[in-house]
Amino acid sequence: MTNIGRIADLLVETGADWAVLTGADSICFALGHIVPIEIGQSPFSGGPSVAFIGRDGCAGLVCPNTDAAQGVGFEEISYAGFANAVTDQVANYRSAVQQMIRQLGFTGQFGFEATSFPYILRDLLPGVPTPIDLSMARLRAVKSAAECARMTVSAQVAAIGQMEARKLSQPGSDEMAVFGAVRSKMEQAAGQRIAFAGEYITGIGRSAQLGEAIAPRRIETGDPVICDLAPRVNGYWGDSCTAFIAGGAPSDAYRAMYSAARETLDLAISELRPGLRVCDFDATLRTHMKGLGYAYPHHSGHGIGASVHEFPRLVPDETALFEENMFIMVEPGSYAPDIGGVRCEFMLRVTGTGCEIVAPFEMSCE
Amino acid sequence: MTNIGRIADLLVETGADWAVLTGADSICFALGHIVPIEIGQSPFSGGPSVAFIGRDGCAGLVCPNTDAAQGVGFEEISYAGFANAVTDQVANYRSAVQQMIRQLGFTGQFGFEATSFPYILRDLLPGVPTPIDLSMARLRAVKSAAECARMTVSAQVAAIGQMEARKLSQPGSDEMAVFGAVRSKMEQAAGQRIAFAGEYITGIGRSAQLGEAIAPRRIETGDPVICDLAPRVNGYWGDSCTAFIAGGAPSDAYRAMYSAARETLDLAISELRPGLRVCDFDATLRTHMKGLGYAYPHHSGHGIGASVHEFPRLVPDETALFEENMFIMVEPGSYAPDIGGVRCEFMLRVTGTGCEIVAPFEMSCE
Repeated sequence: MTNIGRIADLLVETGADWAVLTGADSICFALGHIVPIEIGQSPFSGGPSVAFIGRDGCAGLVCPNTDAAQGVGFEEISYAGFANAVTDQVANYRSAVQQMIRQLGFTGQFGFEATSFPYILRDLLPGVPTPIDLSMARLRAVKSAAECARMTVSAQVAAIGQMEARKLSQPGSDEMAVFGAVRSKMEQAAGQRIAFAGEYITGIGRSAQLGEAIAPRRIETGDPVICDLAPRVNGYWGDSCTAFIAGGAPSDAYRAMYSAARETLDLAISELRPGLRVCDFDATLRTHMKGLGYAYPHHSGHGIGASVHEFPRLVPDETALFEENMFIMVEPGSYAPDIGGVRCEFMLRVTGTGCEIVAPFEMSCE
Repeated sequence: MTNIGRIADLLVETGADWAVLTGADSICFALGHIVPIEIGQSPFSGGPSVAFIGRDGCAGLVCPNTDAAQGVGFEEISYAGFANAVTDQVANYRSAVQQMIRQLGFTGQFGFEATSFPYILRDLLPGVPTPIDLSMARLRAVKSAAECARMTVSAQVAAIGQMEARKLSQPGSDEMAVFGAVRSKMEQAAGQRIAFAGEYITGIGRSAQLGEAIAPRRIETGDPVICDLAPRVNGYWGDSCTAFIAGGAPSDAYRAMYSAARETLDLAISELRPGLRVCDFDATLRTHMKGLGYAYPHHSGHGIGASVHEFPRLVPDETALFEENMFIMVEPGSYAPDIGGVRCEFMLRVTGTGCEIVAPFEMSCE
């Protein structure tokens, strides 16, 4: 079944007639259309691109003329965002949406995405809007066959980046330059520009700190490196993390910390399966880390797909169950200001009976 | 005067009591706060970050806890976007906005940005909303002293990228790899990750085509290269373009086409001054190109600042006047499927009496 069909089924369940999707991730999920995101909202748009999905499976996309629609099985109206003249993008956008809802015969009630639905469209759409963020998030968590294939490519691109990062992380190199070379390697492997999330952070204090920004910095012998690479390829995100020592052997303290994270990831791989409750899985991992004398202050991981972080989030109070074809990042770590930071993260696909590593790469601190 | 003060003055003129800004560019302009854009809307946000500016110059920012507020002179409320627990980001976002409007004493009428104001906030804000996109765009076109300094840095980073691109564009190199190295060079020069707009396209047919995507491709001797580099540094965009031949001498046909674009850019530099009407300037450039036997199908250029393309757009029907401290990209070009594409683009600051090139770089096709 196509994702349009899956959304149509969701509409039947929820009682709405239409889904109006305005998130770049949801549009990609629904239609396979990749909204460019790397410079934020396009200066040539009148508002976010919109996908309309009807209960009967008919679908449409409104996007600016600077984007080419990809994907199949939907109607498309593009409006003048870029023009060699003064133009009112908001008016053009609204006209295109009006034309699309006439074309699709849009009537009845509609579900909308609260995080992205623009005020400027509200008066054009009849009916009472209901937020469908959570039901869309749950639906998106389980990937179609086509999405599984895309996720595999994205994970492979991340794995290629990891190999390159390990190779280039040499004393005397510059943190920001290595990051740039690693990103470029992933773009060459992907055959396209990639949006990038994640981090490549070197040095004891900085690698122990969550949320540091990549910066110009000379890598010294023995520096811990934490390398969390998340490229977006064909609209779907890869993710991955490992940690290691640049040009030197790890200290006993670093090695012990690393082993704890790695062992906990191995435990995750042996435990993850359909029907398991997320909070129980999360507790298993945290308990194991604690038994080894470590802890991490963040989630145990997260779902991934057309958004880099999506449902289910692996946190202590998430009661959802894992299902087959969820793609789950698991990322236990540990951070000590005097030793450095470590984090071990593979992308796991939930199979019928357990899970598999989607694109393995070398993960060791040696 | 600060940009907060300038917006407050605008409110007095327009009769609104508050400006509610939701575009990443406007927020940066108003508060100096840099909204991360490179992965699109954050999966940890409940909606776009919001800046509130009052008629009396008081100001506030609502942003997710994954962003650190930069800038000074405003109140800040961050909400739980990322949490180590299941959390409703939309509810958290709405609560933070409610708290902010209480804190600021938000009453009366407000202006909003039609391209980005979210439906989910409408019911929280009293009063009748009026779109202020165009008046904000006009205000933003003229840069403050602090913005002029940032624009200079961004233009310098682009110029460094141009030098690197010229050096690396050698036969046998790969288009996508050269692009990656150039982007990395700009990031090292900027000391930070940059969002990137623009293109680096090689080969006769591809360089003659507008809107091609950077791709893996071996650069051959004599290939035309079109190199349009636009990095975002500290929230402000640089931009630049030149064209040249990789590892060989230009043909007479290419040289003539290039000279026309370059001569037209030189004419632009000698003509641009405050008080000149944009459409007249645009006509002067197009007429000059036409006299030389060439034409370009796009705008003659565009304003630039916290957005890579902003008011004024240099198009035939724009009647606005240039003003001092507008930053104007001028980019005449020519495109022939059998010769290749050329485009010559400098960033020009409108001075009190004319204009200056903000960050010159080598521009020749030799």
